[in-house]
Amino acid sequence: MTRRSAVPPPVTAVLDASSRWLPARLGEVEEKLRAQATGHGDRLGGDAGRTLAAGGKRLRPLLVLLCAGEERGERATLAATAIELVHMATLVHDDVLDAAPLRRGEPTVVATSGRGGATTTGDLLFSRAFALLAETQDRRSTELLAAASVALARGELAQRHDAYDTSISESRYIERCRLKTATLFECACLLGRDEEVLGAFGSEIGLAFQLLDDVLDISGPPERTGKARGTDLLDGTVTLPAILAAGQDPEIGAADLRGLDATAAEALCDRIAATGALGKVRSRALEMVAAAKQRLDTAAFDPEQRQLLSLVADGVVQRYS
Amino acid sequence: MTRRSAVPPPVTAVLDASSRWLPARLGEVEEKLRAQATGHGDRLGGDAGRTLAAGGKRLRPLLVLLCAGEERGERATLAATAIELVHMATLVHDDVLDAAPLRRGEPTVVATSGRGGATTTGDLLFSRAFALLAETQDRRSTELLAAASVALARGELAQRHDAYDTSISESRYIERCRLKTATLFECACLLGRDEEVLGAFGSEIGLAFQLLDDVLDISGPPERTGKARGTDLLDGTVTLPAILAAGQDPEIGAADLRGLDATAAEALCDRIAATGALGKVRSRALEMVAAAKQRLDTAAFDPEQRQLLSLVADGVVQRYS
Repeated sequence: MTRRSAVPPPVTAVLDASSRWLPARLGEVEEKLRAQATGHGDRLGGDAGRTLAAGGKRLRPLLVLLCAGEERGERATLAATAIELVHMATLVHDDVLDAAPLRRGEPTVVATSGRGGATTTGDLLFSRAFALLAETQDRRSTELLAAASVALARGELAQRHDAYDTSISESRYIERCRLKTATLFECACLLGRDEEVLGAFGSEIGLAFQLLDDVLDISGPPERTGKARGTDLLDGTVTLPAILAAGQDPEIGAADLRGLDATAAEALCDRIAATGALGKVRSRALEMVAAAKQRLDTAAFDPEQRQLLSLVADGVVQRYS
Repeated sequence: MTRRSAVPPPVTAVLDASSRWLPARLGEVEEKLRAQATGHGDRLGGDAGRTLAAGGKRLRPLLVLLCAGEERGERATLAATAIELVHMATLVHDDVLDAAPLRRGEPTVVATSGRGGATTTGDLLFSRAFALLAETQDRRSTELLAAASVALARGELAQRHDAYDTSISESRYIERCRLKTATLFECACLLGRDEEVLGAFGSEIGLAFQLLDDVLDISGPPERTGKARGTDLLDGTVTLPAILAAGQDPEIGAADLRGLDATAAEALCDRIAATGALGKVRSRALEMVAAAKQRLDTAAFDPEQRQLLSLVADGVVQRYS
């Protein structure tokens, strides 16, 4: 239930298949992200600069740009940069709370600047996101990103509220995933082009993204995911594989997550896997991606745009396979 | 150099002098602040709800409303609520970093909900601020508040960067105060009415506010300020009284703030006071307030608006006397 993933992004495939405008536009987003690290006070160059430079999949900016299409130049680039800044702000704050030493192979902001520096850097990235959106002169963009940011925080609060509760329902879990992950994917698409079908596409692949992330936490292998199996369980975060598995194996539902250590967490992962729950969640995610792609068939998009968005959707699945 | 103050606000005097619209409008802001605590997820009611209800001087909303004047109804109320939410978000995050148990006599969010809950609650208040501004349909408001939020974070980072450095210059200190405090006061006035003279008025009284706050940290008394004398020094925050005092008494400049305990901090406060630095800073602040008030004389405001804004400016000074 973290928002991380160690498997490489679908960006390469999309770039390969795209005509010339997309790489150039993504390059502009990178440049704008880098520009956030300069000219905003002496400390920021070191702090946020490292975070911004450490990269990431840029999945949300990619969705903004693809949904916007070639003709929506500067406005799409600003929105794509803004949504990535909000995503990064939440990662910087997550790392403060987890006291995480590394992200994407680089020292985290909290590791280099302490809790105070990192909390403030997150706030700064957040503020810069809205400052950039104000430049687009588009009130609707502010409305969309603010609503998505509210959802992110609500999702995080809901997850904290549910911590260590192995009795949470499937629908509660899905609601949390919508708030924590799907809404920002939906927002990315709508920032690109404010059409319901695109929002639904984004929401669906965002949800699939989270489900598969939660499968990876149980299945590993750690050398692929970059984290130990059962990290979510150790944090008290009960995800869909565990919920489904508890339906088959009551002892999983009765497990006391507070008492887990790394070894016990791995054993619990094995037990969850033995119920066949991982396959079920994976199938559910694949169905979501297929449904998301089908939405595009019913809408009036140009063939290249449809193809590229489908590749992004496939990329979400390829994270797993 | 904190953004707190324990001395009651100038609100009462302003309300007494105002015609009927202002109290009603401030009541609407309170209602909107309270509304933020409901309908945004199960945990928020408890967390942010307590923070929002704990009150505060509402100085920034007051400035928004007064600068806006009676005719700018809903839009001014939304902006006044939004700026207070940003202010609160920073206080909630400050309390996380200070592990503060109480604020305004109530348990802090970090005390009731832990670091994770409080960090996220701050993020949520921040997000809600921009969501409210989007409702105003006024792009300029988003631009102003986002820029002020960026300044706040930059000021905080600058203060962290300068920590324990007794050789910082007066101009560096003033720059930090502008970023940390004056810009949000300026923003409040401009959100009310986007006129340069009002922005300058807000910036000047904000700066005076911070200077006097920094005097209070040295002078106490603790039973008035609600905190021990020398709290800033213990945090490594070097403020104008210490900078001016170091010019008179080299031993103050040579003090090792990292080695301070509460008793040594009080002794250092006495030593700073003995140089006459507190009086100098106080005079500087009073001059700023006088200059701010004079700006209003040269501008075209109706007499009631001018009178009420002057009362707010006086209120900043009365915090001290």
